Amino acid sequence: MGLVVGVDVGGTVTKAVLVDGDRVLAHASAPTPRPGPDVVGQVVDVVSGLVGELDPAGDADIGVVVPGIVDEARGVAVWSENLGWRDVPFAALLTDRLGRATAFGHDVRAGGLAESAAGGGRGARDALFLPIGTGIAAALVLGGRVHDAGGYAGEIGHVDVGHDEPCACGRRGCLEAIASASAIARRHTARTGRAVEAVDVARLVGAGDADARRVWEDAVDALARALAWTASVLAPEVVVVGGGLSAAGALLLRPLDEALRERLTFQRRPRLVAAELGGLAGCRGAALLAAKRSALC
Amino acid sequence: MGLVVGVDVGGTVTKAVLVDGDRVLAHASAPTPRPGPDVVGQVVDVVSGLVGELDPAGDADIGVVVPGIVDEARGVAVWSENLGWRDVPFAALLTDRLGRATAFGHDVRAGGLAESAAGGGRGARDALFLPIGTGIAAALVLGGRVHDAGGYAGEIGHVDVGHDEPCACGRRGCLEAIASASAIARRHTARTGRAVEAVDVARLVGAGDADARRVWEDAVDALARALAWTASVLAPEVVVVGGGLSAAGALLLRPLDEALRERLTFQRRPRLVAAELGGLAGCRGAALLAAKRSALC
Repeated sequence: MGLVVGVDVGGTVTKAVLVDGDRVLAHASAPTPRPGPDVVGQVVDVVSGLVGELDPAGDADIGVVVPGIVDEARGVAVWSENLGWRDVPFAALLTDRLGRATAFGHDVRAGGLAESAAGGGRGARDALFLPIGTGIAAALVLGGRVHDAGGYAGEIGHVDVGHDEPCACGRRGCLEAIASASAIARRHTARTGRAVEAVDVARLVGAGDADARRVWEDAVDALARALAWTASVLAPEVVVVGGGLSAAGALLLRPLDEALRERLTFQRRPRLVAAELGGLAGCRGAALLAAKRSALC
Repeated sequence: MGLVVGVDVGGTVTKAVLVDGDRVLAHASAPTPRPGPDVVGQVVDVVSGLVGELDPAGDADIGVVVPGIVDEARGVAVWSENLGWRDVPFAALLTDRLGRATAFGHDVRAGGLAESAAGGGRGARDALFLPIGTGIAAALVLGGRVHDAGGYAGEIGHVDVGHDEPCACGRRGCLEAIASASAIARRHTARTGRAVEAVDVARLVGAGDADARRVWEDAVDALARALAWTASVLAPEVVVVGGGLSAAGALLLRPLDEALRERLTFQRRPRLVAAELGGLAGCRGAALLAAKRSALC
C-alpha cells in the first residue's frame, strides 16, 4: 500500500492528511469556501491545493469526503444544506481536476469507518459513530459494513425526540435542535443572554450553574431517547461519540449511560466511548476509501 | 436444489412447508406446546412430527425458525418471553433428533428474508419487514443482507413512542403496547367493555365507530413515529407490513403513508406495502435458510 491523501470538506474548514498505512505523515487545512454560485468550483480548487501541498510529486491515491446526502455508488453529492449544492458529480469533477481516479464519499460514514478501523469502535462488528457538532448525524457500521441506503442513512439528528424547538429542516422536535453542540450553546444563551459555546456550557455544568445544568440535562435526555431507540432496533455493541461535544467526556457519557440503563430492559446495551481520532476522523476515513478503491483496481 | 422443509415455531401454532425452489408443494401445522418445564423437548417433538409428515422419505434439507432473541451464528435460542426458554442450543438438538444438519434462525428475520426474496420487498436492497401481530418486531434487510446483531436487532416493538400504556417488557410507552393487533383489541375492549379482535376494530373503523377510530388513530400515529425514525436512520426503500394487522390493507397503509409525508422532509420516504406471503413468510424463510446452508456445504 502506498501513500494516500484523504480530504474532508467540512462546513467551515477543509482538512487533509497524508497517510502511509496507519501512520499519519502530515496534515494540512484551509477554510472551506462559503456557499455561493461557484462554491463547487471553489471547493475543487481548495481540495486540489491541499493535495498539491501534501503530495507535490502527485503519486498518492486520493479520497475526498463531503457532508450532506452523498450517493457513494454514483459519486454524486446529492444535497448539502450547509454548502448549498445539489446533485454535484464530485467524483468525476475531482478525477478530472486531479488527473487521478479519486475515491469519493460521505464525511460521517468515512469517519465511522476510520473509528471502526483504528479508533473507538475497534473490534466491534456493529457500531454507531455519532459525531455531535453543529448538527448530529450517525454512521452505521453493521456486520462490519457501512450502511449507506443510497446516501440517506444515518440522519439521526432529525428523529423526533418530543420537544418544541424548531429545526433547520423545517420540523420541530428533532434531536439536533436540542442536543447538538450549537443547540446547547444557543439554548443556554437564550436563557441567560450570554454568548457561549457548548464547551463553556459544559464547564458551567461542572461548576453547578443551574441554567447550564437544565440545558445539559435536556440534551442528555434527548440523546438517551435516540440511543435507546437505536439499541432496540440496531443493537450496536458500541456507540462512538465524536464531534466537538465529545470533549466533555464523562460529563456527557456517564449520565447518558445511566439514562440508557433505565430505558433498556432486555435489549443489548451498547458501550459508550469517546471517539479517538478527533477532528481527523473524516480525512482518515477518506484515506481509507482511497486505499480500498486502489486495492480493488 | 432439492426438496426443503421449513418450520416456523409460532407462539400458538407451528407451521411447516415443503418447497421445491419457489414452489410450495405442501404445508402442515400443529399446536405449539405451551410454556412449561419440558417445552423445549415438546417443541422438538412437534418439529420432528411435521418434518416426518411432509418428508416421509427423509431426503429434504431442514430449516427451523423460532421467536425471541436468537443467535443464528451459535444456533442458540437466547430468550423467548412467550415460550419461556433461555439459552437453548436448538440447532444441535434438532440436528441430533432429525439425523440431519438443520439450519436454525429467527422467525421475523426469516420472514423478512422470504418477503425480500419472493414477496413485498422484492427488488429492494434496503427493506424493513414489519409483522404486526401479538407483538411487533422488525427484520432489517440492509444492503441485501439481514442485520442480526447477535440476535438483538429489530426490537422496534419496544421503542418508546411516548404514551402511558404499560408493556410486557416492564417499561411504558412501547410501540407494541399501543399498536400491536392485541393492543388494539385490548384498548378497544377497555373503552367499550366488548371483547373484540383487532380485525373487528378495523371493521368498526370502516363503519365510523368513534371508539374504534380513536384506538386506530393512536396505533397509526405510534407506527408513523416509529417508521419516521426508521426512515431517518435506516432509510429503507420499502416497508413490508405483515402479520395479522396487515389484513386491514389500505385502512392501515393509507393513513400511515399520509402521516409519514407530514413527518419527513428531506429523508427518503419508504413505499408502504402489504406482505405477500401471509402466515407462511416464517416457514418460507426457514426453507431459504436451509437451502442457503445446503448450498454452502
